[in-house]
Parts: sequence; C-alpha cells; structure tokens
Amino acid sequence: MPQTDQFRRGAADDNGPPGRQDVSMDQQPLSQPVRSRRPSGREAKIAARTARSHAFGPYITRNIPYYEVLGPEGLELLEHNADTILEEIGIDFRDDAESLQLWKEAGADVKGERVHFPRGMCRTIVRRSAPKEFTQYARNPAHNVVIGGNRMVFAPAYGSPFVRNLDEGRRYARIEDFRNFVKFAYLATSLHHSGGTICEPVDLPVNKRHFDMVYSHMKYSDKPYMGSVTHPERAHDTVEMTRILFGDNFEDPATGKPRTCIISLINANSPLTWDATMLGALKTYARANQALIVTPFILAGAMSPVTVAGTAAQTLAEALAGMALAQLVNPGAPVVLGSFASSLSMQSGAPTFGTPEPALVLYVMAALARRLGVPFRSGGALCASKIPDAQAAYESANTLVPTCLGGVNFVLHTAGWLEGGLAMGYEKFVMDTDQAGMMHTLLAGVDLSENGQALDAIREVGPGKHFLGCAHTQANFQTAFYRSPLADNNSVEQWEAEGAKDMTQRANALWKKQLAEYEPPPLDPAIDEGLLDYMNRRKSSFPDSNV
Amino acid sequence: MPQTDQFRRGAADDNGPPGRQDVSMDQQPLSQPVRSRRPSGREAKIAARTARSHAFGPYITRNIPYYEVLGPEGLELLEHNADTILEEIGIDFRDDAESLQLWKEAGADVKGERVHFPRGMCRTIVRRSAPKEFTQYARNPAHNVVIGGNRMVFAPAYGSPFVRNLDEGRRYARIEDFRNFVKFAYLATSLHHSGGTICEPVDLPVNKRHFDMVYSHMKYSDKPYMGSVTHPERAHDTVEMTRILFGDNFEDPATGKPRTCIISLINANSPLTWDATMLGALKTYARANQALIVTPFILAGAMSPVTVAGTAAQTLAEALAGMALAQLVNPGAPVVLGSFASSLSMQSGAPTFGTPEPALVLYVMAALARRLGVPFRSGGALCASKIPDAQAAYESANTLVPTCLGGVNFVLHTAGWLEGGLAMGYEKFVMDTDQAGMMHTLLAGVDLSENGQALDAIREVGPGKHFLGCAHTQANFQTAFYRSPLADNNSVEQWEAEGAKDMTQRANALWKKQLAEYEPPPLDPAIDEGLLDYMNRRKSSFPDSNV
Repeated sequence: MPQTDQFRRGAADDNGPPGRQDVSMDQQPLSQPVRSRRPSGREAKIAARTARSHAFGPYITRNIPYYEVLGPEGLELLEHNADTILEEIGIDFRDDAESLQLWKEAGADVKGERVHFPRGMCRTIVRRSAPKEFTQYARNPAHNVVIGGNRMVFAPAYGSPFVRNLDEGRRYARIEDFRNFVKFAYLATSLHHSGGTICEPVDLPVNKRHFDMVYSHMKYSDKPYMGSVTHPERAHDTVEMTRILFGDNFEDPATGKPRTCIISLINANSPLTWDATMLGALKTYARANQALIVTPFILAGAMSPVTVAGTAAQTLAEALAGMALAQLVNPGAPVVLGSFASSLSMQSGAPTFGTPEPALVLYVMAALARRLGVPFRSGGALCASKIPDAQAAYESANTLVPTCLGGVNFVLHTAGWLEGGLAMGYEKFVMDTDQAGMMHTLLAGVDLSENGQALDAIREVGPGKHFLGCAHTQANFQTAFYRSPLADNNSVEQWEAEGAKDMTQRANALWKKQLAEYEPPPLDPAIDEGLLDYMNRRKSSFPDSNV
Repeated sequence: MPQTDQFRRGAADDNGPPGRQDVSMDQQPLSQPVRSRRPSGREAKIAARTARSHAFGPYITRNIPYYEVLGPEGLELLEHNADTILEEIGIDFRDDAESLQLWKEAGADVKGERVHFPRGMCRTIVRRSAPKEFTQYARNPAHNVVIGGNRMVFAPAYGSPFVRNLDEGRRYARIEDFRNFVKFAYLATSLHHSGGTICEPVDLPVNKRHFDMVYSHMKYSDKPYMGSVTHPERAHDTVEMTRILFGDNFEDPATGKPRTCIISLINANSPLTWDATMLGALKTYARANQALIVTPFILAGAMSPVTVAGTAAQTLAEALAGMALAQLVNPGAPVVLGSFASSLSMQSGAPTFGTPEPALVLYVMAALARRLGVPFRSGGALCASKIPDAQAAYESANTLVPTCLGGVNFVLHTAGWLEGGLAMGYEKFVMDTDQAGMMHTLLAGVDLSENGQALDAIREVGPGKHFLGCAHTQANFQTAFYRSPLADNNSVEQWEAEGAKDMTQRANALWKKQLAEYEPPPLDPAIDEGLLDYMNRRKSSFPDSNV
C-alpha cells in the first residue's frame, strides 16, 4: 500500500499531523519501552491517576496571569456607566421595607421602592468593609477553601429540576440523584466544593426539601457547601444545621463571631430589581457572617441590552447595590461579585451558551471585580445542548477556559450542567470534572526550574534521537502530563476492539464505578443524630407545601 | 406540579440556571415578540446567517490583547536556552551539502552534518531580512491574506490519509474527498485559506498526486493555498502551476520579483534535525519568494523533553535554524515560526490533544515569535478522538481558544481534524468552521461605542422590564450575537420532535447541503487549459510510483 509511507515524517505531504506511527516508527528503536518500567495494566493506570490527582490541593492558587480584554480606560468607562445607572435610573428593592430603610439611613435617595444612589456610594460602602478574600470552612479542615485573590474554587452545577443519564434519558430529579451528585463531587479531586442545589429533589415538598439537601451535603461529603435561599426561614435552617455540624468550631473564639461556613447564591431580578425573597435570604446570611454570591442573572437581550458593554455595566450596578446592602446589614460580611450572562438567541428567544459574547462579559466582569477588590464568581461548564455531545463539549470548554484565564474565584456550574441548566447530567458531570482537572495543570503555569527547563535532557538525547528512555523522562514519568480518565488516545484499531465507545459511554461506566466504590467520610454519630433531630422537629412543625 | 415554580427566578433554590421559561415567564409579557418583526422560518434564518457571515473579512484583525503566560524574564530565559542548544548541542542538516555550505559561509561551526551556531547568530540573520508580516496573494484579490502582526488566518486541517463521515465511517481518502474539502473551505466564510494536503488522495500515485491536489485548490476555490513539500520537484511544479494561474499577476511589476502566492509547511525532524526532503522544498520555495512555515513538529516526551519550557526552547532553536537558512537562501523570503506540540500519553505512547501542556507551549511560543518579529503558526482544532464526539469537541476547543488568545497568525488545522490528524472528518469540518466563526466575534472584542455601551437602552427599559422590544434591541437585532448554524438551543420538547439529533447528525445534514449547493468560482478557461496542459505533460514524462 502506498499509504504506509505517509506516516514517515518528511516522506509525504502529510508531514503535519502525527499518527501514533510517528512514535512507534521513530528513527530510533524504543530501546527502553515506556511500559517496561512500571507495573502494567489497569491497576497501574488507576494508581498513577490517583497519585496525580492527590497533587490537587483544596483549592487552586493560580500561577498564570489574568487575561483581560479591556484596558483601564475601558474599565473606567464601564464603572462610570454603572454609577450613571445607579444614580439616574436607580434600582428597585421590592416588598422589603427594611432594605429601603437601610438605604435611606445610608444617604440614598429612596422614592417608593426605587432607590437612587449618589455616584460612588455603593462602591465606597463595599470597599469600606467587604473582605478582599475569605475562608469558607468545611467540616473537614483539609477542605477549607480560600475564596478571592489568586485562588479558584470549583463547585458543581446548581439548580436543575431534571437529571439525564444514558440509561434513563431525562427525568425529574429526586433526592437520590441529589445524594449521588454530592457523592460524585466528594470523590472528584478536581472539585473543591460540594455546591448547593445540585438538582431539585422534586420528590420532596418544596417547603421542606432544603432540609434534605443541606443534610446530604453534610452527611455524604466533608467539603464546603451552599445554603438555601428560597425563604429567610430556610436560610435560617441552613445556619442552624451548620451550627450543629460544626459544634464548637462554628464560632471563632478570637472574635466570638460565627466562622463563614456557608456560601449562598443571591440572584438579582434583572434588570435593576432586587426582590423580597432574595433580600430576605441575603439579610439572614449576612447577619450570620455567612458568605453571599451577589449575582445579576442575565440573559442578554431580554434582561440586559444585547451588547457586552451594556450587560457589564448593568451587572456591575446591580451587584454593587446588592453587595453594598449586605455591608449595611453587617459590615464585613463576605460578599462575592457574581456574574451570570448568557446571550439570547434572537431567532427563538432561547438562551445560548458557550458563545463568544458571554466570554467577553466574563473577562470584563472579572477585571471589574479585581478593581473593586472583591472575589468574583462566574463561568463553569455551561451549555445549551440537551445531551453531552460535541455541542455540549464545545460550549462547556468555551466557558471553562475563559473562566480560568479571566480569573473566576468561585466557579459555580463546573460540572454536570446540561440544557441551559434545566438538566443535571450524570455523564456530563464526570466529563466536566475531567476538564476541571486539566485546568489545574493549566493554572499551574510553566515550570521554569532547572528540571522544567530540561536542558540536560536535550543535551543527553541530542539530534535525531528520542526522549522516551532518557533520565529526565524517567524522573518525570509519573507527573509529566495531565492524564485524563475519559479521553481515548488509543489507535483506532484498539478503540474499535474495545467497542468504539464515545466519551459519553466511557463516562457512563466511570460514574457507575464511582458510585459503587463510594465510601462516606466519617461523621460523629452524635452530630448526625443532632442534625436528624433538628430536621425532624422542624419538618413536623408545619405542613407540607409546594409553594 | 411543584416544579413549575422552579422556573420563576427567585422562587426556588434553582435561581441560578436559566430555563427558557425564564424568558417566556418574565414578569413582563412579550408585547412585541421577537419573531413578529422579521420573516419567519428557515429562509429568514439562512438570510440572517448569511448577512452575519458576510461581515467576516478575508482575514481577522484582532481587537483583543494577546494572552501571555510568561513575563519578559521567563521568555528571555527560554531564548537563552535556545541559544545554548544551538551553540552547544547544534542541529543536524542531513544529506544536504548546499545547506552545510551556506552555514559555513555564514560563519557557523560545521562538523560533518552537525552545525553549531554562535549565540544569537540565527536570531540576527532572521531579524535582518525576514518580513514581520506579508501578504499571501489569492487568485481572487478579495481573498488575499495578510499573515503576521495582529492578523489571524484560518486554514483547514492538513495531511490525513483517512476520512471519516457518519455514512461511511472511516476509510482511505480519495481525490474526490480532497475536492469536497476544498469546496467546504471555499464555502466557509470563517475560513480564509484553502489549505494544502487537506487529505491524502491515496487513489493517486504518490509521485503525481501533488498535481491534482494543487489543481483542486486552484479550480474549486479562489482562496490562497499551500504547496507540495514532499520533493523539490513537486515544490517546483507547485510554483510553475501558480505561475500559470496568476499569469501577469505572478510578478510584482515594481520589484520584478514573484509575489508570494504559495505558503508551505516545512517540518523539522525533531529533535534538532533537518532532513534533505524538507530542506529541498524549503530552498525551492525560498528562492521563488514563496512563504515557508518552519515548524518543529513535536510529540513532547518522544521528540522533546516532557516539560513545557524544554519543549519551547527546543522548538525555538529548531525553528530559528530553519528560518535563518531560508534567509541565507533568499534574504527577505517570508517565513513563519511554526510550533506543533502535542503531549505523549506516558501510558500508551499515543499522542494526546487538547490537554493543558500544549496550550502552555502555544502561549509561550506565540510570545517568543512576537519578540523575534516573525509571524506565528500553531494551534487549530486538534483532538485525539476518533469520532466527532464530546472528547473531540473538548479537545478542539481547548486548542482553538488558546490559538486565538495567544495570537496565532496562521492557523493550520482549523477544521476537520480527527484522530490525531490521521482522519479528516466531514462532520468535524463543518462543526469546526462554526467554532471558527465564533472566534471572529471573540477576537472583535468589546464594542465601547455609544451603541455598545447601550445606556439609552437601560434608560428606556428601566427596572423590572425586559429589553426584547426596546429600540436598541431592534436596531441591533441582526448582528447582536453570533449565530451558530449547528448549535441546537431549542427546548427539549422541540429538539425531541425534530428527532433528538446530536450535533454530529446536524453537521451531517449541513455538509451535504453545502456540497449540493456548491458552485465553483469562475476560472478563465484558457488558464484552466494551461493548468491541465502542464499537469498532463508533466504526468506523462515519468512513470507512476508510490515512493
């Protein structure tokens, strides 16, 4: 056959692409084949992966610069526009007299529910007392996370009423699914956080399901978690259960104040509106010194202008007002500037994900948060695709890479997101955790140590030889490159022999294996009993309701 | 059902994710539904997409900054190491006495086939005469591309012996496939270039297939193209056919020199070796003032050290030697610094793609090329996956985003790449061109004009309303957001009603539609005859061979 020649580099036009033939047909025989130096087979692979993943810390400290798309003048212009929005147009605080009173006392112009803010007022309030970074405590101190600065924390997706997997397709989520995803997140070394409403357990009554969700995070994981925000009472329950879980550790003996053990998602009702439900949860958590992600949730074109600069200015205005209110409630309460921006399809009105405009919004908002001096939340692995196909993956990667380069401190929706957030995907979850793992390596940057420079390796090998057997390669064998548990890099023949599976099918096998092998982190039985006690007492104190 | 509540923002825990219910259940009725303002249905969609894509120019002029992972000290260290490699270890120039003689005359230390270079020598030679940027001419001047500076040119993938599509699976490529991909690239407004050996027509003899490949680029497209590099004679044929195609336009009347109408891929035989085949093509094209992409083709771990810094220093050393040689052959001949770096799987020896290490190499090499002052080639939509599944898409996006942010001037492998370059995918091709289209929007950056700031829109709409019907949205309706022809953003119900197709199935329909609708660009019949004449004469002058 003529085409065997095609694989010899330099022998044909196709000198560009690599075939694995390029490796095995290298000019030099593989005198010391890679496999011979280590235990072969499945166990060795798992051991290697485990060794690698254990290198992941409780959160990421980035070692690469931030990517910014605008210079200082552009960012100043957007800050100016946010101030103009706050001053001229104002923000509505609905059905919440207390918030309006706080604004009045702070010197804002309150007319009915509309609040107008003197230029710079919200920024000054936030800068005066909001921490630049803070620690969210976990019941296992090894999983405490620092949120802010050059750190990144990866958390699962949040809020889907549906789940999807290859075996069952799409169906309503149940509390069993919720527990499963908490277990996956606990097992994933690339995720640092247990998340919040990973999926909606619709088999439980709306007004009581928060108990089971919060308990699941506490019982099946020892990573930090998020609180319920759908009613101030439910926020209060989250704080009380956290108090039981942490016991003596809940309060900092030095200050007598509660440690920040909960982070919660507080969404604006864009454009320019904060409603009573969110304000109630915000105030409850702020008073308890628990962290708040203050997030304008924006489908650009519907809830903001169709432009990046308009969406960013509006996001900043809304977030500033929310974060400033939290500081008025309890100066020093940890707040995170959140931005969730998707573009609307102008043809169908459907939200789109992984498109370039939201990536630009993310880069801009990350820079604005740094200028303001607060941690930033955005991004994740967002997609509009219903299934974990190529569309889902393109869209997710087009969100996750900007998330990492732009400098998101708290990444909600890192894993599992499908269908614009309507469905939590079992396969998508483990696929995304793999991608999150890769990001650890990217964010570690370039090793410029002597070992990283590897000049001795180049000296040892010299022209025309290969590096597989050289001392440097042997020394760095275990940690040389990120190893994906899901990517298939084998030859097409081997891949076909193994069933020609796509990534989703391999992911299906992986999550089943994880569930089968899961073991819960130890929890003091007295604490467990205390939590169940609290839940049962509270649950029986009022009737079920789906409102 | 309790879960209907979940879609009202602020009403339940799932306030994070958007459902399309968030749009249609917005507090304000959609008084002016989007659809009512424009012709509905399929035609309107196509018209809108066409209008949008016509906004794409013949190449991209970026409007966002470069992303760099290393500061000046780190980059200087790598330049220093490249000089150390060139000085201490040297480079082999094999079976090419002329190259060795050129190096001797230039003052290098030549021992046998090993050349050692005084520190800085190659850099000085390149900087002295290599253009910082140059125009590659197309037979249709509207498709001339500028390569270098803040420009980006997207070209198809290169060199696969196999093709894959949903209908036939994987099989050897034929000249008919080659023509099809030339047609796709011609039709793709997001691709600026016709590429080179898009796939290997293995149904034609090795020593004559270059005629049909070059002719196909000339006949079925009017975008710029690449030349044959597998033999100096084949390079010569490419130049001669180009002379026929361009006629009087081939030479610049002002200088009397040939215009640069061909760009070609010259790969090093890493580590640290240039072989006679590549050197022969390099010299032929350099003498004819045709552009050269001088590319160390590296599977890190086999052909370079396992580290990013080691791979980058070696790449720079190899490329510097190749580019400097081109300048010795013909000072001023356009050269592009190329970098192709993949990581080897340390388990199987297979190349991997879309992993973080090659992205870091890309960012570093792009910065080094800018410091040197030559255009840069790298990236694309690379993947190891055999099929266009989620793995392929994650990996491709993880390559294409760095390609754009890092600042690649000439992007080979933008579309079609599968299986580490062994297969050219029909569906993958149109999927990748969609992604390339998105990158145009990303690279256009943030519009800070008054229209981009959109303050009037926010003033008009105000708190708690929606932007769908406002004047600003109407004015920007057509161009507001990038519109993907392949992403499905519809509701799950609609998607199921349309057959629950994944992106690959939609791509299958799209490329068939494109082939059916393809019309060739006009070509002067006399020129066509001249080309066929030349080919037939040359083909009959020597026997077929598969070497």
